[in-house]
Amino acid sequence: MKPVEWLGTSIRIIDQTRLPQHLETIQIENWHDMVEAIKELKVRGAPAIGVAAAYGIALGAQSITGTPEEDFRRELEGILAAFAASRPTAVNLFRTIDRMKQHIACEKGRDAIVLALIEEARSIHAGEIDATEKLSLYGAELIANGSTILTHCNAGPLATAGYGTALGVIIAARGQGKNISVYADETRPLLQGARLTVWELMQADVPVTLITDSMAGHFMSCGRVDCVITGADRIATNGDTANKIGTYTLGVLARENGIPFYVAAPLSTIDPALRLGCDIPIEERKPEEVTMLAETRIAPQGAKAANPAFDVTPARYITGIITERGVAGPPYDHTLPALLKEVQ
Amino acid sequence: MKPVEWLGTSIRIIDQTRLPQHLETIQIENWHDMVEAIKELKVRGAPAIGVAAAYGIALGAQSITGTPEEDFRRELEGILAAFAASRPTAVNLFRTIDRMKQHIACEKGRDAIVLALIEEARSIHAGEIDATEKLSLYGAELIANGSTILTHCNAGPLATAGYGTALGVIIAARGQGKNISVYADETRPLLQGARLTVWELMQADVPVTLITDSMAGHFMSCGRVDCVITGADRIATNGDTANKIGTYTLGVLARENGIPFYVAAPLSTIDPALRLGCDIPIEERKPEEVTMLAETRIAPQGAKAANPAFDVTPARYITGIITERGVAGPPYDHTLPALLKEVQ
Repeated sequence: MKPVEWLGTSIRIIDQTRLPQHLETIQIENWHDMVEAIKELKVRGAPAIGVAAAYGIALGAQSITGTPEEDFRRELEGILAAFAASRPTAVNLFRTIDRMKQHIACEKGRDAIVLALIEEARSIHAGEIDATEKLSLYGAELIANGSTILTHCNAGPLATAGYGTALGVIIAARGQGKNISVYADETRPLLQGARLTVWELMQADVPVTLITDSMAGHFMSCGRVDCVITGADRIATNGDTANKIGTYTLGVLARENGIPFYVAAPLSTIDPALRLGCDIPIEERKPEEVTMLAETRIAPQGAKAANPAFDVTPARYITGIITERGVAGPPYDHTLPALLKEVQ
Repeated sequence: MKPVEWLGTSIRIIDQTRLPQHLETIQIENWHDMVEAIKELKVRGAPAIGVAAAYGIALGAQSITGTPEEDFRRELEGILAAFAASRPTAVNLFRTIDRMKQHIACEKGRDAIVLALIEEARSIHAGEIDATEKLSLYGAELIANGSTILTHCNAGPLATAGYGTALGVIIAARGQGKNISVYADETRPLLQGARLTVWELMQADVPVTLITDSMAGHFMSCGRVDCVITGADRIATNGDTANKIGTYTLGVLARENGIPFYVAAPLSTIDPALRLGCDIPIEERKPEEVTMLAETRIAPQGAKAANPAFDVTPARYITGIITERGVAGPPYDHTLPALLKEVQ
């Protein structure tokens, strides 16, 4: 079952909010529903958001009929703007939109544009599958036999619509016959670690122990963690990395305990326009994600809560960034632009 | 309403597992129920456990009737052993048991022993009220007007059967008219921060923002935290401090960001028999506390989870230990034994 699948006139996604108790798919019939699915994290993970938005834009373009080309283009711009406003941090979304805009600018006539957008969406999807497969193999070389790896949030097949980034590396190392095990941070508030990472690793037959986010430091300080690997939502060209809230803390803890800390991400996650991590916009989500769980209120009535969904890990805490072109090391302001240039 | 109250032939406690949705008391009629209440965290927090166990032992002694003194003493030993086995980390429990044992050894005859145990329980309780009031005032001097304080777990009146330790300091600073605010870590798995700290601070009219444990580092790195204050469950004489899981991480993050990190604890929390924190026994609780949140299962069926309830923060991360005899600073292996000697 694929996390995101183009069906020609609709898109099928796995509803990630229902896992692990329910493995259910949703058939997305119009672009509005895809915007909502992204906002509500039914589809989530930076590369998967990029793929889902690409198909969503193609679906939207297809649905505009019977209008002059000028109106068609205006409606299409509205669709692009709605996707751009869905979530602010993952750069893959904006990269998708940029690529779609180029086609809209180059092609002439509704049918040619629609065809080009569908082709581009397929190409973005194929690119993520290819990139995550390659980076998984590069990353697996860094994992020694017998290692225990700590990971945060979910950076697996679900998050990438491909092989996964952090989990792609772990599953590839396991595929090489290495005897490894994983500590998975539950990742409050939305528990992507407890719900999705544990589920994906159990399916891949990788031994996994669920811990609360607050236990990661304890296990590192006890010598029970050999390396940390996370995904990324946006990487500045100096290596500063935005990822799920809590990742910065793992970077600090890893360095304090002499443990390598890797970020696994396709080059599509690097934002060539951003030199520093402090310029990455951090999504603030609604406080109810912190004060409630499912239907249960866990804080007093009227309690105030903060809910930044991401944080920025400065490059100095990052041992290496695992990409489909190999593992970049510091100084990232040299190595990352060099990798990006190779791709162009 | 008092967290723990001796009623002569029973003990009334606030059921801390029902807060904040329900403020309910339980009338404890026999010592078995007090052991269970401690195990199930109906009463929790190192000083409060010490007080509750003291009253529970007195209640148990009272209930043994019509047996020769030899049998009475044997039954009493069984009661002490049951309390000693209830929770392993908080040293206040063992200090209570030691003090009770001294009275049992010194007094002659059932009635004299029972009376001495009741008196000693009252004295332990009064001592915690007095100590937490004094340390709160010492600690408040460290809080500058306009400060934002981060705290973890719950170290308030509920946890101490007195004024509170970390929250005692915060509430005392507020009482001095200082304009302060608090970030409260929710403190997974059992959410003592979300449930109890937020509730106690709202009652004390201290502005408080609830965050997940994984957000603490982010807010520290953004310059939004001026100091960190936590309680303690056991402190070795070198200053190494066992406290709720996640505290070690806050110590590392605070030092990395140049933020003072204080531990607030009565001297009863220092274990004079322990030179190093690595010798503090860490309670491992059942995995269901991690795989479930409130009543909801959050991990896949069959998922394995770890659940250490505490971690140890090495003394090098601790700026000061706030006690009823003043604030001890490093080197703790000199300053803490000196404070303990003054008390004797």
